[in-house]
Amino acid sequence: MSIITVERKVLKKNDDLAAENRACFMSRRTFAVNLLSSPGSGKTSLLERTVDALKHELRIAIIEGDVQTDNDARRIAAHGVPVAQIVTNGLCHLEASLVQSALPQLPEDMELCVIENVGNLVCPASYDLGEHMKITIVSTTEGDDKPLKYPAMFRRSSVLIVNKIDLLPYVQFSVDACIANAHSVNPELLVFTTSCSSGEGIDAWCDWLRDRVRELRDEPAPGAAHPA
Amino acid sequence: MSIITVERKVLKKNDDLAAENRACFMSRRTFAVNLLSSPGSGKTSLLERTVDALKHELRIAIIEGDVQTDNDARRIAAHGVPVAQIVTNGLCHLEASLVQSALPQLPEDMELCVIENVGNLVCPASYDLGEHMKITIVSTTEGDDKPLKYPAMFRRSSVLIVNKIDLLPYVQFSVDACIANAHSVNPELLVFTTSCSSGEGIDAWCDWLRDRVRELRDEPAPGAAHPA
Repeated sequence: MSIITVERKVLKKNDDLAAENRACFMSRRTFAVNLLSSPGSGKTSLLERTVDALKHELRIAIIEGDVQTDNDARRIAAHGVPVAQIVTNGLCHLEASLVQSALPQLPEDMELCVIENVGNLVCPASYDLGEHMKITIVSTTEGDDKPLKYPAMFRRSSVLIVNKIDLLPYVQFSVDACIANAHSVNPELLVFTTSCSSGEGIDAWCDWLRDRVRELRDEPAPGAAHPA
Repeated sequence: MSIITVERKVLKKNDDLAAENRACFMSRRTFAVNLLSSPGSGKTSLLERTVDALKHELRIAIIEGDVQTDNDARRIAAHGVPVAQIVTNGLCHLEASLVQSALPQLPEDMELCVIENVGNLVCPASYDLGEHMKITIVSTTEGDDKPLKYPAMFRRSSVLIVNKIDLLPYVQFSVDACIANAHSVNPELLVFTTSCSSGEGIDAWCDWLRDRVRELRDEPAPGAAHPA
């Protein structure tokens, strides 16, 4: 039982730091999302597409989490937005403390901060980073039962992106079954279907994300007088 | 630092139990492999192909590890071999204790035991289950830099299977680059390329596996007199 106790303490400490991150994001009016998936589901490709679509309208910054290498950070930096790289050296998930240490490297006036978590459909679900929402990607090459097999991630996410829909003719995958499985775990999940190769669905996803960023930016400050 | 201490204790305890499992496998002349990959790389599909190819020649039994559901166990059981299911209820990897608890459910005279680990390219690398070797699958839809980004898994494996090669025309993936990356992390890795859809490469993989099982079965018992 001792490991459970320690784990709880670790999570409590993480939750405290995540609350600090959340307060920081809120005070700066930065919309922060935690992007989650298995290795190779297309987190970085979707980010590249998203950055290209929105960088002329929004101030975007990226936090890249990887077990090893800065490959993804270099890919994103080539698209002309600020990137902070976290190399976890074997740790299988990002924690709030790591995000906190990355924040000073990014512009204070960023409107959208995307945190690309370590590729792992299990462990990152347990760690609040202070984000506004978790977004999980599943690709059509992975099997449509993934929401049932890894439910925590889908339960704690607000958005599901079914990616690589260009590969549907070549794989055994039912988008409808995947979405039904995801909704059986979390009926509130908002779903987008995308292909980073063909570009299908990218506009709808980016339109939605732009709206969320502007919504937060234009929200009255807490405690500010409301117009009568 | 306390979590590191606990983690070490956990790993020490795991290693002790793994040694017991290994002794059990050796005494029964069971060749045991620990099958590892991301979610959706094709572990279960490869197992189905492997079972179909070898079940009339070898006594095979399977241990299925899943965070939730017994979907995979039911898929494998339909192929007519004994299966023990471990549902980890959120745990992101199998541990030796879980394998030990599954062993009494399987025939003592099994010649090949395949342990399908939880879909996760990070955490399962740290846990010895008592297997003879770890085998990692990476699929062509995941990106050819995965060995660099998740090096521990590739460093600790004996075999790499590059799966879903039927999808190569539709994805950006270089088999050569993937193998070169894997060998830069672990030069000893033996590599197979497979497609569970077309069947390409399955024979070579199954031939190799059959040879390993027979090699162990026909090895002189430890301490037995060798022929002069």
